[in-house]
Amino acid sequence: MMAAVKACNILITGANRGLGLEIVKQLLEDSSQKRHIFATCRDPDGPKSEALRELAKKHPSVITIIRLDADDPSSVKESAKKVGSLLGKSGLNLLVNNAAIALTGSIQTSSVEDMKNTFNTNVIGPLLVIKEYLPYLQAAAKASGIPGMSCNKAAVINISTLWGSMTRMPSVYTQFPVLPYCVSKAGFNMLTVLAAEEFKADEILCMALHPGWVKTDMGGEKAPLESKDSVEGMLRVIGSLTEKHHGGFLDYTGETMPW
Amino acid sequence: MMAAVKACNILITGANRGLGLEIVKQLLEDSSQKRHIFATCRDPDGPKSEALRELAKKHPSVITIIRLDADDPSSVKESAKKVGSLLGKSGLNLLVNNAAIALTGSIQTSSVEDMKNTFNTNVIGPLLVIKEYLPYLQAAAKASGIPGMSCNKAAVINISTLWGSMTRMPSVYTQFPVLPYCVSKAGFNMLTVLAAEEFKADEILCMALHPGWVKTDMGGEKAPLESKDSVEGMLRVIGSLTEKHHGGFLDYTGETMPW
Repeated sequence: MMAAVKACNILITGANRGLGLEIVKQLLEDSSQKRHIFATCRDPDGPKSEALRELAKKHPSVITIIRLDADDPSSVKESAKKVGSLLGKSGLNLLVNNAAIALTGSIQTSSVEDMKNTFNTNVIGPLLVIKEYLPYLQAAAKASGIPGMSCNKAAVINISTLWGSMTRMPSVYTQFPVLPYCVSKAGFNMLTVLAAEEFKADEILCMALHPGWVKTDMGGEKAPLESKDSVEGMLRVIGSLTEKHHGGFLDYTGETMPW
Repeated sequence: MMAAVKACNILITGANRGLGLEIVKQLLEDSSQKRHIFATCRDPDGPKSEALRELAKKHPSVITIIRLDADDPSSVKESAKKVGSLLGKSGLNLLVNNAAIALTGSIQTSSVEDMKNTFNTNVIGPLLVIKEYLPYLQAAAKASGIPGMSCNKAAVINISTLWGSMTRMPSVYTQFPVLPYCVSKAGFNMLTVLAAEEFKADEILCMALHPGWVKTDMGGEKAPLESKDSVEGMLRVIGSLTEKHHGGFLDYTGETMPW
């Protein structure tokens, strides 16, 4: 494991499966760092969270599972209160907005409901999470005493996608007509840019990261990339971020993505 | 007037005020073209549509006012039925998605309701309009018999904005914290790119246009640009579009905008 993520307190949304779960796993493997992971998911007691529960049982001092449903503002608020009470004065160093849904559809087949649901989960959800956890990120930035920006001080990493890139979509859309997902991720990228502007004074790093096209429930079986390789790459990138990446868009190999 | 828009059948949403009304006015001034304008608005009988009603009274053979509330799918459907019954076999040549709302807010102050309302009007609305009017655009493209793309054959012009540009926002956001608007317009730009992909085979031109920062109810009094100048520029650009602008993003002077 090459990950240079040294952040102490880390929160990951959608941590019960796919890339979220793999991020938790790889952070656990790196025992050189003392850290605490807040692994959030919609339904901690449900069947889709079994793997995460197993992991938390094995590492009770490292993982705390927190219920967070990005579609429900009161759930986001409650989660922040709980996490806040568990965090020390050192605050929250790293927030990974990973939870998302991908609905397929074209101009003809994308329903109003699909558009609304995707936007709620993929854009409004992260906005609420950022808003509610901002005080803890500010506390971490203040507590660090180090100038500049890094994920070990205070950072928001927004898991975005190639499918949110206006520049890249024309070449892939015909093969993958996922209009509600694309539109929401373009909005999410804008949210990243604006949050970065707002966080400048607090020196909280904020950027968008494309994990590659990964074999997960979302990515499907045809995807060329294993979760393991995607997350190894992303953690390497996250660990190497500085203020020069603030407000930017990179992929899991560290290459700059076009908007 | 330099506008080279020769389209016969034109539909403009949000045509009762601001840029929408100015587009109707300038198209009327150019009497060299025989055309019909479907001027749509939420509330044709309300006080905010008085100027448009006056105009329609003076030019009853050119303007038809149509009720269209982009937030209400059944209203979009009904409007399309009505317009369809009035259009001949020549179809709809030019659809201008102009209706939009601009809500201000930052990470801290943007409410869930503001985010939802802005997304509904500025993204889902135009999606529904494009979907319902597509058969008439296809009819126009077929009827033209001319190869290639132009606004005189069949085109969808999406009135976007600088505030939807990820590249441009960092320099203006602090001065104009309009997060719900920015996020929705980035999503709208993605819709433009995807619609352009879907319309290729039908040779229906689709692109995004930034009108400049204009003195309207939306733009406010500090805006440097008059509606008249913005619309003169936009009509010149619209009239000059070819397939090489398909899926692109230009401003009212014809300059390419970055996503």
